[in-house]
Amino acid sequence: MQIAVLLYDRFTALDAVGPYEILSRIPGAEVVFTAAQPGPVRTEMTSLALSADAALQEVTAPDVLLVPGGPGTADLLADEPTLDWIRRVDETSTWTASVCSGSLLLGAAGLLTGRRATSHWVCLDHLWAFGASPARERVVVDGKYATAAGVSAGIDLALSLTGRMAGDEIARAVQLVVEYDPQPPYNAGSVATAPAALVAALRASDLAVGAV
Amino acid sequence: MQIAVLLYDRFTALDAVGPYEILSRIPGAEVVFTAAQPGPVRTEMTSLALSADAALQEVTAPDVLLVPGGPGTADLLADEPTLDWIRRVDETSTWTASVCSGSLLLGAAGLLTGRRATSHWVCLDHLWAFGASPARERVVVDGKYATAAGVSAGIDLALSLTGRMAGDEIARAVQLVVEYDPQPPYNAGSVATAPAALVAALRASDLAVGAV
Repeated sequence: MQIAVLLYDRFTALDAVGPYEILSRIPGAEVVFTAAQPGPVRTEMTSLALSADAALQEVTAPDVLLVPGGPGTADLLADEPTLDWIRRVDETSTWTASVCSGSLLLGAAGLLTGRRATSHWVCLDHLWAFGASPARERVVVDGKYATAAGVSAGIDLALSLTGRMAGDEIARAVQLVVEYDPQPPYNAGSVATAPAALVAALRASDLAVGAV
Repeated sequence: MQIAVLLYDRFTALDAVGPYEILSRIPGAEVVFTAAQPGPVRTEMTSLALSADAALQEVTAPDVLLVPGGPGTADLLADEPTLDWIRRVDETSTWTASVCSGSLLLGAAGLLTGRRATSHWVCLDHLWAFGASPARERVVVDGKYATAAGVSAGIDLALSLTGRMAGDEIARAVQLVVEYDPQPPYNAGSVATAPAALVAALRASDLAVGAV
């Protein structure tokens, strides 16, 4: 089973690495990080680069496609080579998945028309433009399309996909290996629980825009 | 404020990237990934490399040191150049932190003697050998030493450190930006909640050893 993770300039690191840490532990899974050009690809915060080991044209039929989000999505919404690649690998994928604003790329590729999908809370409403029905949920599965909310939600998405692909027993084993027993020291992780003033301030700020 | 993340062959990706995604968003923070040799460093699952942008000798006085875990720690427990570097930067750090089996490196460097500390559940008892008192907790703070449990616990550790370094308001803002509102689809993330048979099987298997 091949899992392809799309990298591009200014993607969000945890969007890609959270799911990687889970999915790469499925017995028999092979993960490949792919980008337009092989080599180091910088994250949005610029102080980290992940290596893309394969060019897009080398990755032709992954079983799972995972598209992370990040401010760099804005540069790709009209980038036909990237959107074409997404459409081509989606033709034969078992699962096509995204984290955060990665769902906007799936939408721009035309894959979410008429489907329920989610995204980072800041850009959830942008999904309407692609004919999708935005859902404010942590993970949304509609057919073979699995989309996650912002950044850290990719971990929950990946565990859910692991259960569907490899069974509950493997998913539980992976959860225990990565000791995923979250205990956030604050309760501000969603627009439902964060102080309303904080939500409003972030909506208006570069901080949140930079995140998606 | 400089935050140094130590990379080495066969580190665990999420141990490093979870905290990075949080800490890099603190206003004024600069994160540097450092390794014995600059360049790509492969994670334990081998299908991903992160770039180390600086050699250890170029990073002399970070405010925060973060040591991720991974099976590669086993190769470094007697590696004097690495342990010496850890000891030297610890002399002036504000916080010295670890995720997962990274605490074994802090222990091997002699920094946890007489302190409470935690680690991945599989190797928690190894902390005794370094004169530390193992605590089965998600995040343990003893003086300036902050240690986290396995892999995903680095996210909780980083949010906690963010609050202590930059205040609760910034920490909440970062939590909302990365939408850290975890909703694991299973409840097997700790030895307390996972089926006992799974815990026993993993203790005996290469899967868990490979994780730490």
